[in-house]
Amino acid sequence: METRPYVPWDMMNSFMIDVFKKYGVPEEDAKICADVLLESDRRGIESHGCNRFKPIYLDRIENGTLLPVTKIDILKETPTTVVMDANNGMGMVASHKMMEILIEKAKVYGMAGGAICNSTHYGIAGYWTTMAEKAGMIGISGTNARPSVAPTFGVEPMMGTNPLTFTMPTDEEFPFNFDCATSIVQNGKIEFYERSGKETPANLVITKDGGTMTDSHNILKEMRAGNCALLSIGGAGEETGGYKGYGFTTIVEILSAALCGGPYMKALSGKDENGNNAMYHLGHFFFVINPEFFMGLDTFKATSGGILRDLRNSEKAPGAERIYTAGEKEYLSWCDRKDKGVPVGASIQKELIELRNRFSLDYTFPFE
Amino acid sequence: METRPYVPWDMMNSFMIDVFKKYGVPEEDAKICADVLLESDRRGIESHGCNRFKPIYLDRIENGTLLPVTKIDILKETPTTVVMDANNGMGMVASHKMMEILIEKAKVYGMAGGAICNSTHYGIAGYWTTMAEKAGMIGISGTNARPSVAPTFGVEPMMGTNPLTFTMPTDEEFPFNFDCATSIVQNGKIEFYERSGKETPANLVITKDGGTMTDSHNILKEMRAGNCALLSIGGAGEETGGYKGYGFTTIVEILSAALCGGPYMKALSGKDENGNNAMYHLGHFFFVINPEFFMGLDTFKATSGGILRDLRNSEKAPGAERIYTAGEKEYLSWCDRKDKGVPVGASIQKELIELRNRFSLDYTFPFE
Repeated sequence: METRPYVPWDMMNSFMIDVFKKYGVPEEDAKICADVLLESDRRGIESHGCNRFKPIYLDRIENGTLLPVTKIDILKETPTTVVMDANNGMGMVASHKMMEILIEKAKVYGMAGGAICNSTHYGIAGYWTTMAEKAGMIGISGTNARPSVAPTFGVEPMMGTNPLTFTMPTDEEFPFNFDCATSIVQNGKIEFYERSGKETPANLVITKDGGTMTDSHNILKEMRAGNCALLSIGGAGEETGGYKGYGFTTIVEILSAALCGGPYMKALSGKDENGNNAMYHLGHFFFVINPEFFMGLDTFKATSGGILRDLRNSEKAPGAERIYTAGEKEYLSWCDRKDKGVPVGASIQKELIELRNRFSLDYTFPFE
Repeated sequence: METRPYVPWDMMNSFMIDVFKKYGVPEEDAKICADVLLESDRRGIESHGCNRFKPIYLDRIENGTLLPVTKIDILKETPTTVVMDANNGMGMVASHKMMEILIEKAKVYGMAGGAICNSTHYGIAGYWTTMAEKAGMIGISGTNARPSVAPTFGVEPMMGTNPLTFTMPTDEEFPFNFDCATSIVQNGKIEFYERSGKETPANLVITKDGGTMTDSHNILKEMRAGNCALLSIGGAGEETGGYKGYGFTTIVEILSAALCGGPYMKALSGKDENGNNAMYHLGHFFFVINPEFFMGLDTFKATSGGILRDLRNSEKAPGAERIYTAGEKEYLSWCDRKDKGVPVGASIQKELIELRNRFSLDYTFPFE
């Protein structure tokens, strides 16, 4: 059972918008950013929700590595494609603009693709692919990130945790929504293990000597020092398919940089050669596919829904209560939270109060 | 070192074409099919090469589950998309036609997508994505297959081994070519372990009681009886990312059936309700993305090549000789084999001689 206090969705949303505005984010952009972050909380993906409001967005605006006003340059546009330069502004604002354009293109042409360079953290990848799904289309997206994942037979953090995300319409209450890193875990999960006082399972992390670590606190420390790396799905070596996960991580690394002509891997560390904070220069990619240009949306939905129902109804392992399909847990999270609000732990409560006081905003939180 | 005798590429190619023709495959189609199978041998992917010539193609033509003449119906066509019905003909012939059309569309529109229903085994997925890459484009493809993979927390073989394949141009001698099943291994690998007298590593297969098996011979027997299932990359449960591999397998299952409106999962067993041989009704999907509609092919190639070189040059695990990138081993296989020919083991030698004798063809193999 959830023991953290809840903040109503409306209150948290308008609070985040007000604070973003105080940091110089234009109101329309602030609305987008707040919605992206809260969508993560709605889905129960707490690694990318209001916990990141201050450290990943506000603090970066403050230290100059994220510009609150997003100047978007269109570098190239064709009937089916767009390439944007986000000029180190809000990645979420550029991505929102991108998806609006691609959905319109895919209505006319059936297929559309886009890439953004010089961007910043774009929130959950699944927000963008869900925009396509809400328009009755398939959304695909991925992004690079600072280097933390080693290739198969390597030990050096080279690639980002690089999500490869697909959202697809179904005839059910919720879509097929596959939104996760191509590494076994991302940093946020290890932070979660640390906060919970738990060890990280073996073989998720590789050390310089080719071994693994399980002490969550030490992993985070050694990760920051570049002394260990995350592994892609399948783990180290080839026997359990580690080269396949490594392949998926590489696909995202290539598509995120090569379509927009942006930098990659070590150039995305967020540090300059002297170790000072630097712009992130992230790259993202987006594809939209319109089933109406194939055998139609209704056919698509009936088929995808049928597959997902058959999977859930298939024979369970002894002791397993339930077989889920991708996006189902996120939907269940929303069902649980929609009337309650956002659960907010102690450290986030403290951040919210400090921000409210700093800007003398007129909010009284339920946990006060 | 390779100890099997080699058959020259030209001889094997013309032999396969001659035999396909004897089975009723039109000459132009036979050329395509022979090239697809031999491309697998060129790349060292021996699970999908001339070892499959007889059991997966000729025997199926003979038992009536694969029609040698491929009647293709275009169910839908738009400027960027095509849906085909392959009418249980040669999947490789329909896929070749599909890629020719999509590449032309992507030259004009930048993006193209296609789906095929009522198809049969289409060989290595990477053959189709490489057609796009040879045209300077990104190729993406996948296919469903008979049910053998269990979902996370499940034990029942529901989905195919479902490859999700990407081939992308680089500025190197060979492309980025990621061509593999989304299960940890496919049946061919377990057959390989069996032939080599080796155990299958633990946790690649799940039994009805939620355990695993390692006896390769027993695994194959129990797989045929539906008593065990393969696992997607990441393995059983959620702790090591098994739900991520399961997600990728599901993506391929959905895209293979939902875009073309074809059947899925248990309906792809190749058996009717009485256990008799039936048509496979496989579905495939294909996407082609033209980098000239983004920041240009040269930019794309320089970036992808740069990423791959940096990965190979990164710090190796102690004892690791080399870091590979996807497609590199396939290229090295071709470099090794191009002047030697196809290595052919004892069971394939026997099949070739029997076919030669049966049709009184004028070939003398080097191993005779």
